Amino acid sequence: MRAELSDEIVTIKIQEDSQRAISLNQKSSFGKLEDDVLELSLVEAFYLMEHGRLKIYQKDKKLEENVIREIIKEKGVYGKYLVYRDLKNRGYIIKTGFKYGSEFRLYKRGKSPGEGHSDFLVKVVYENYDISVLNFSSYVRVAHGVNKSLLLAVVDDDEDITYYEIEWTRP
Amino acid sequence: MRAELSDEIVTIKIQEDSQRAISLNQKSSFGKLEDDVLELSLVEAFYLMEHGRLKIYQKDKKLEENVIREIIKEKGVYGKYLVYRDLKNRGYIIKTGFKYGSEFRLYKRGKSPGEGHSDFLVKVVYENYDISVLNFSSYVRVAHGVNKSLLLAVVDDDEDITYYEIEWTRP
Amino acid sequence: MRAELSDEIVTIKIQEDSQRAISLNQKSSFGKLEDDVLELSLVEAFYLMEHGRLKIYQKDKKLEENVIREIIKEKGVYGKYLVYRDLKNRGYIIKTGFKYGSEFRLYKRGKSPGEGHSDFLVKVVYENYDISVLNFSSYVRVAHGVNKSLLLAVVDDDEDITYYEIEWTRP
Amino acid sequence: MRAELSDEIVTIKIQEDSQRAISLNQKSSFGKLEDDVLELSLVEAFYLMEHGRLKIYQKDKKLEENVIREIIKEKGVYGKYLVYRDLKNRGYIIKTGFKYGSEFRLYKRGKSPGEGHSDFLVKVVYENYDISVLNFSSYVRVAHGVNKSLLLAVVDDDEDITYYEIEWTRP
Repeated sequence: MRAELSDEIVTIKIQEDSQRAISLNQKSSFGKLEDDVLELSLVEAFYLMEHGRLKIYQKDKKLEENVIREIIKEKGVYGKYLVYRDLKNRGYIIKTGFKYGSEFRLYKRGKSPGEGHSDFLVKVVYENYDISVLNFSSYVRVAHGVNKSLLLAVVDDDEDITYYEIEWTRP
Repeated sequence: MRAELSDEIVTIKIQEDSQRAISLNQKSSFGKLEDDVLELSLVEAFYLMEHGRLKIYQKDKKLEENVIREIIKEKGVYGKYLVYRDLKNRGYIIKTGFKYGSEFRLYKRGKSPGEGHSDFLVKVVYENYDISVLNFSSYVRVAHGVNKSLLLAVVDDDEDITYYEIEWTRP
Repeated sequence: MRAELSDEIVTIKIQEDSQRAISLNQKSSFGKLEDDVLELSLVEAFYLMEHGRLKIYQKDKKLEENVIREIIKEKGVYGKYLVYRDLKNRGYIIKTGFKYGSEFRLYKRGKSPGEGHSDFLVKVVYENYDISVLNFSSYVRVAHGVNKSLLLAVVDDDEDITYYEIEWTRP
Repeated sequence: MRAELSDEIVTIKIQEDSQRAISLNQKSSFGKLEDDVLELSLVEAFYLMEHGRLKIYQKDKKLEENVIREIIKEKGVYGKYLVYRDLKNRGYIIKTGFKYGSEFRLYKRGKSPGEGHSDFLVKVVYENYDISVLNFSSYVRVAHGVNKSLLLAVVDDDEDITYYEIEWTRP
């Protein structure tokens, strides 16, 4: 499939690849349909690119994977991408968690966003971070308030990811 | 209605479409009347185009929606467009907020720019941004100085928009 | 009144100053009663000290205001103290906002914690900070979820404080 | 019951109070039996003292609660004491978590240390702390390695305690 990068959004024209582009959205919850195009975030587009399902062009020049990776790193969301890829590979449906102050909300395998509430909010941090206990409290509070668990995803220096499930509790 | 794209401005000649073009400006506050033309920003023009109210030509060639969308993305104002469309769909009258350092100024439903001051300044940011507290302070200060509230519009990775109303206050 | 500093907690023995110590807690919501002592946080104790209502000792040595101020700065909560003092001077009852991921929760003048819910959550930041839009979203979400407004308190380099009231809104 | 404070350990001589002292250890898991004495930590001893079950002497002088509280504060473990008391009041059996790098290990109500493994490791932090992600990871790792959950106990400025249950997970 062919897509175009512009303004940090990657666009697939649906008339060119109608079946596959619509299926990406309807079956796999990628991107957002806008009239006659499917718009993907950089993170979504790079995932498809890495898996050989998307070629990305800019003004008719085909871009290398490294170019997209660099753009993602410059935006400071490469750790976010690594967690996205890992969770996607595990079969999750992933949507932004922005309204909840977290990177992602996560739907269990086989459950689509339309069918019900998400199960997890995912917060991405790096191995070398310090987390303020106040912010930690805020993340868990939001998750608790909407009946989700918080999944803390720690990206280490080897780009491996460790997950911690966190619940507010009264022991 | 037919309009002409040239130098990132979209122009409707009034002799061609006098009633409708003037009404766009007088009743819906689109664009700016200049002699015998109504000049629309790309954002305004694309909104009308997406809603089937405008056809845009360049040197007698009719442009596809995708072409205009691409131009908007290349200018780096697609997030701004998404917020414009969302607020327009909610019934607001929207003018540029350029003089106030914000993307838009906003008039409540049923209130026209001529009738009084706008109610909001709208600042558009993206989910993955960091806002410097200094800039934040500056946006609110400007809004307060002209008796408006600041509306922070955050475009997330799913292209949904979350709004925060912000007021300077002495508690 | 005399108090003792130890382990970052300041303790007033109630038998020494029963009326005044109990009144601090019952009428002004300072500290926490523990058996026969009133325990104050450093922030509370320094406020009373600055207002000439408390002398703080450590092993029978009377401490200067500067010593306490230095301890507060070393703990990284001097900005928090400045906001506490300012809000206290304006007549608010102030309790920790920890469970909500914010520095304080705030009760309007004349309203005590026992009488109802707090009105504001207060988040303290510094003029030179960058706020991630994600964290911002998290703070507002928590406040919204418990029917409070978020009060963002910005401490500038002159130690003046500017307040912004923030509400999640659908315009 | 009478005990003796010496060198930050509180000792009950068993010949004096055999039944009750042995029962404290056997039924309620307080302290450690050493020959003819039961040794209590300061935290354990102060808990019993606050609940009217222990009088503490030093060289035949009966000590006030305030004196023990001060010693605990001077050792910098008053937050640890507050968490101990809260969990004890909730019916848990509590032993030191020192070997696991945590403050406590915790046995569910009605389960004694002899009957099986503890259920939780408890890590005590304060509201104003930053936690390094590396340390956080280490606490959870240790807990996971011995089939326990990590309970993060946060002591806030009002001396209330919020608990978070944390599990290493593969989502």
